[in-house]
Amino acid sequence: MITIEGGITSPKGFKAAGVKAGIKKDKLDLAVIYSELPARCATAYTQNKARAAPIQVMMEDDAKSLRAFVINSGNANALTGPRGYNDARDMQRMVGDQLRLEPKEVGVASTGVIGRFLPMDLIGKGIVQACKELDRSVEADIDTAKAIMTTDTKMKSFACQTNLRDGTLVTVAGIAKGSGMISPAMRTLHATTLSFVSTDARLERDPSGKWQQIMDSSFNVINVDGDQSTNDISSFMANGAAGGGPADDDPSLWEAVMWVAKSLAKAVAVDGEGATKLIEVLVTGAKDDQEARVAARSVVASNLVKAAVFGADPNFGRILAALGNSGSDFDIAKVRLHLSNGKKVTLFDNGSPLIIPGSNEENLARNILKEKRILIELDLGVGHGRGEAWGCDLSYEYVKINASYTT
Amino acid sequence: MITIEGGITSPKGFKAAGVKAGIKKDKLDLAVIYSELPARCATAYTQNKARAAPIQVMMEDDAKSLRAFVINSGNANALTGPRGYNDARDMQRMVGDQLRLEPKEVGVASTGVIGRFLPMDLIGKGIVQACKELDRSVEADIDTAKAIMTTDTKMKSFACQTNLRDGTLVTVAGIAKGSGMISPAMRTLHATTLSFVSTDARLERDPSGKWQQIMDSSFNVINVDGDQSTNDISSFMANGAAGGGPADDDPSLWEAVMWVAKSLAKAVAVDGEGATKLIEVLVTGAKDDQEARVAARSVVASNLVKAAVFGADPNFGRILAALGNSGSDFDIAKVRLHLSNGKKVTLFDNGSPLIIPGSNEENLARNILKEKRILIELDLGVGHGRGEAWGCDLSYEYVKINASYTT
Repeated sequence: MITIEGGITSPKGFKAAGVKAGIKKDKLDLAVIYSELPARCATAYTQNKARAAPIQVMMEDDAKSLRAFVINSGNANALTGPRGYNDARDMQRMVGDQLRLEPKEVGVASTGVIGRFLPMDLIGKGIVQACKELDRSVEADIDTAKAIMTTDTKMKSFACQTNLRDGTLVTVAGIAKGSGMISPAMRTLHATTLSFVSTDARLERDPSGKWQQIMDSSFNVINVDGDQSTNDISSFMANGAAGGGPADDDPSLWEAVMWVAKSLAKAVAVDGEGATKLIEVLVTGAKDDQEARVAARSVVASNLVKAAVFGADPNFGRILAALGNSGSDFDIAKVRLHLSNGKKVTLFDNGSPLIIPGSNEENLARNILKEKRILIELDLGVGHGRGEAWGCDLSYEYVKINASYTT
Repeated sequence: MITIEGGITSPKGFKAAGVKAGIKKDKLDLAVIYSELPARCATAYTQNKARAAPIQVMMEDDAKSLRAFVINSGNANALTGPRGYNDARDMQRMVGDQLRLEPKEVGVASTGVIGRFLPMDLIGKGIVQACKELDRSVEADIDTAKAIMTTDTKMKSFACQTNLRDGTLVTVAGIAKGSGMISPAMRTLHATTLSFVSTDARLERDPSGKWQQIMDSSFNVINVDGDQSTNDISSFMANGAAGGGPADDDPSLWEAVMWVAKSLAKAVAVDGEGATKLIEVLVTGAKDDQEARVAARSVVASNLVKAAVFGADPNFGRILAALGNSGSDFDIAKVRLHLSNGKKVTLFDNGSPLIIPGSNEENLARNILKEKRILIELDLGVGHGRGEAWGCDLSYEYVKINASYTT
């Protein structure tokens, strides 16, 4: 597998466009992604019961194949009742009209402020323009990735290529947005981070099971603020344009898809609202992989751990308190806690703290915490389970952004 | 029931003292509470699996009767291994030696920084002093309430009196501390907010069941930051010194105990680290009371709701998103959401938002959110369950306090 410079249209047969529809003030806010061939797809949705209208529509359709996706930012079309539902259906129909597709061949997603009706006149004009501008180019990739952003400070786009067992070169690419209200727990069939992964690999079977596994090790282990969104969605589309035999069971493909999904998820974590640092947690020695992920996520989700990392305060007890709240099994007498970033310091071992106030170890821990990327390693001492999670620190800026979001 | 000015020693037969043991720099940091008669007790503990040493000791002893309680602040004696365990046992023994009690007749609790060993020489001297100074007075009440505080800005102490069915006048009083790491879920038998409730009512049966019910409607529905502590404990002691018949089934007593517990819990919420406002959530129309409490707590626990309230931003979609994450059942087409503080504004009804940007209603909502106490009322539209929860907003000050807690 090699990483390449590229975006959502790097895989063959995909086109895209991002335009300024006017939902936001003079910013890209509407994107259309188009596949020249029907793309076998799997989509994961938020488990928040207050589902946005586009999520309702997508879950009803439960499409196994898609030709296009329309996405707007600036307005989540969430908690907008029957009118919002009809607006989401209209977005599908408008794209269908432009691209000569059935409405159900068009995926729909929204992100932005909750509880406001969409400006459908602007959306309609934006869709017409985007469908006209569909292209396979660096500009199209960038405009599309930017059009789905809200409080994101950076666009999130990754691409890679790999050779399948039969020699076919396939490309996998993805874009994502997400900065606040990030605590996804997406389930396929029935995940506000939006992400879209495209590949030209050929699949013959429903990829939902594989996509769920990838979700559980990527988007579902990130946490910015513990608030699961009404609008999370993560969609995978494989259109087969690369040719070659079916790749359903080819590990190379799934490794490449996993790399794109993890890269996007980490990019969302590091660009969390107000984030100044990336917190990576690696849990080993858990009862199983699932418990390891749950423990890791509990640590990155703790406001107190986040605030301590922001202040470079080696208050490691909070990490273990968060572990204690995770519900995962551990043996405190065997738990080991390390902090690292090139250098490594052990904070807790054999059931006891190893850090004494004012010691060299405490200073080393403090210096590690001043870095931009902090790795917390926790061995739970009860098994061989292993899992990772990613999050960001809690800063003044997070509070500032969220104290005046609609103002 | 009448409320009275008073503290932990207002019920007959209780004495207390708070002293400066030197754990904190020149601040009250160690308290002893003493009952002249054996007090029937019920204690609720944190469900965090990384339990502090004093919690381990208390859960092992599972005392049904106590004569005294020793509490220190400034150091949580948590994650301190076998040495910490022995230190907690030594605290029981030291108090027992001074007051001629069995160690197991002495409750023990700690709060403060996690992962540091207790300065047992200072603790020992503090215990000797506190046991000498035990008194039933306004000063003793105040010193005791202050000695258990950490980042609290206000002492939390409430007392009331009620007449039982047989005419006996009983007094119920309580103190609590708690400001950060507040998201308790305490269970009796097997909650860092500490609270101690004393009464001179006479009980003949184990009050654990009643105490759990009271916990579930008081401390277990408050949230400052979502981090359940390693050290939460809430203990109820009834010593019978008021005389009269057994009060086990007397509603007046439990109403008085509930009032003290709720008053303490709300006082902890409003004094949350960095808090500028009290957020009260009242959920009605839930499937049952339990689901109502879970929904209400999910709303006060949301970082995004907290930040919006801090900024007086009427971003009500976050309230419904938090409801959606609670797991509680609701019918979005029937959900109603009001914001009130004397004035009242309806934000959502019939499945649709009622607030339009720039409208008078939006301005009214904004003005309500500028108050110091905000009531959020949510009707879930599916039943008759009713529940409350209390929390505080998320401010710059919270981040500041927690970015440098040990520094």
